[in-house]
Amino acid sequence: MNIAVLGAGAMGSLFAGNLSRCHDVLLVDRFPEVAAAVAKNGVTLVEQDGTSAVHRPRAAAIGETFEPVELVLVFVKAMGTVDTLTRCRSLIGKDTLVLTLQNGGGHEDILSQFVPMEHVLIGTTQHNASIREDGTIFHGGSGVTVIGSPLGHSEEAVRVAQAFTQAGLMTEATDNVRRIVWQKLMTNVSLSALTGVFQMPMGFVTQSASCWALCEKLVAEAVEVARADGVEFDLEEKLAEVRAVSEGGPQGITSICADLMHGRMTEVDTISGSVVRAARRLNMNAPCHEMMVLLIHAMEDKNAQTK
Amino acid sequence: MNIAVLGAGAMGSLFAGNLSRCHDVLLVDRFPEVAAAVAKNGVTLVEQDGTSAVHRPRAAAIGETFEPVELVLVFVKAMGTVDTLTRCRSLIGKDTLVLTLQNGGGHEDILSQFVPMEHVLIGTTQHNASIREDGTIFHGGSGVTVIGSPLGHSEEAVRVAQAFTQAGLMTEATDNVRRIVWQKLMTNVSLSALTGVFQMPMGFVTQSASCWALCEKLVAEAVEVARADGVEFDLEEKLAEVRAVSEGGPQGITSICADLMHGRMTEVDTISGSVVRAARRLNMNAPCHEMMVLLIHAMEDKNAQTK
Repeated sequence: MNIAVLGAGAMGSLFAGNLSRCHDVLLVDRFPEVAAAVAKNGVTLVEQDGTSAVHRPRAAAIGETFEPVELVLVFVKAMGTVDTLTRCRSLIGKDTLVLTLQNGGGHEDILSQFVPMEHVLIGTTQHNASIREDGTIFHGGSGVTVIGSPLGHSEEAVRVAQAFTQAGLMTEATDNVRRIVWQKLMTNVSLSALTGVFQMPMGFVTQSASCWALCEKLVAEAVEVARADGVEFDLEEKLAEVRAVSEGGPQGITSICADLMHGRMTEVDTISGSVVRAARRLNMNAPCHEMMVLLIHAMEDKNAQTK
Repeated sequence: MNIAVLGAGAMGSLFAGNLSRCHDVLLVDRFPEVAAAVAKNGVTLVEQDGTSAVHRPRAAAIGETFEPVELVLVFVKAMGTVDTLTRCRSLIGKDTLVLTLQNGGGHEDILSQFVPMEHVLIGTTQHNASIREDGTIFHGGSGVTVIGSPLGHSEEAVRVAQAFTQAGLMTEATDNVRRIVWQKLMTNVSLSALTGVFQMPMGFVTQSASCWALCEKLVAEAVEVARADGVEFDLEEKLAEVRAVSEGGPQGITSICADLMHGRMTEVDTISGSVVRAARRLNMNAPCHEMMVLLIHAMEDKNAQTK
């Protein structure tokens, strides 16, 4: 399969590297020096057991003119999706599929500005990766990737899943990917957002009765919005799952918390913000998630002021 | 006038000390050793210009049996009001007035469990005071005290205001004290609550666009609840006032922020919590203030865990 991966961050590099084992892969980054480094040195993936491998996808900088590909895989930070796709339009032909595995929900509304919804694929992945100081990619966690069309059954999703699995990235196609995305959001919009505001590890959310009460409000509000969006969840079941994540990894640091600790901008707009946008689209209010988005942005402002 | 002041904290001592200049004042505290210290040493008030004066109200510990007084002035922390009044019931006769100048709103609902609403007086004061390490009381700020009956015009309020003014505590009686209390709440439920969550001085609320957006939500929601409670405010006017307080004292530390900085419990239940309770009484929701109450309590939990 002829694939372009957008964004040579940790996850983009992880996927581009693995996929290049048996596909024609182009890794595109907005920084020409990053593209040049990949072209020169390849992508070095370091596994948890210490073994490593170098993969050699082709590399290019955004802004170059490309030939259309079969699949564009978007792995830039969500706030950069529109800009990146706009500058990479030449990758998109009339049959090109665009897949995102970015965090958060509602990405199909953005991707469908560039291709018909029939060519949009969304999903979630259990892989995680981080860039180390020497530029190598540490593959910190593995698992299943699930993809599908927001419209339901998709032969294209099945074909892409096979191509990914063939390259060693175990991937399933589902007819109900929107449920999978909402499912993952439940934990992110509660645990990740709250631990960000309090700058505390995941266990705090269940250790503090007041923080748990906030968590219940956030999950309940998200379940309501999901229901209006046609995806039904049992509130008690979702709460039990979130509780289990908090209790199961009490020292865990979520991505929003880590970003704030290091003075970085967070992805709260794609996480809590996606519930707010879904609510608006459905003519509902999501006041608790609106507050969380503003609270996290104000924390970013505080970091900018005090550093 | 025969007056009992409940609570020998900074504000209770300030009022008891001043009132004892020309009234018969009994200062009651829940700690017998505090009462004994006042009985032995009197109350030393230190003014901003460095001058000081010793006043000698009578002093007693909660739990003793008292004669009924003309006026009970409640200055305990709001979470202790019911317990304190219960244990000081002997102070209350059939004509006894009960006045509170505690922060927050809705105190009339608590006081009217002990005396008929006709004998309840509420209000606000611009005085502020703090206890210094040597036990003296620093009178950090002066201004007007405004009191009145929640029911409207009250001859008793006029009489009490005269008695206070005579003792050097300039006090006005108003026929619309509930408006005055709501007015003061607008600043507290926005600036005090937000600076508490972010542990930042007052200026941050207007310096951060996201924090100001939170502030607008909180003021708008409080204005809605006040309106349903029969007190009409202009939202833009209130927002301009809150903005002026933030911009006028950017380095100012609010009481909730200071309490959290020092690892103390806050009065958020009487501040933001009073908007939540008013909303419930009026069959409304106040989701943003509900969140603020929980956020501040979770901050208290965090302090308890990390200290």
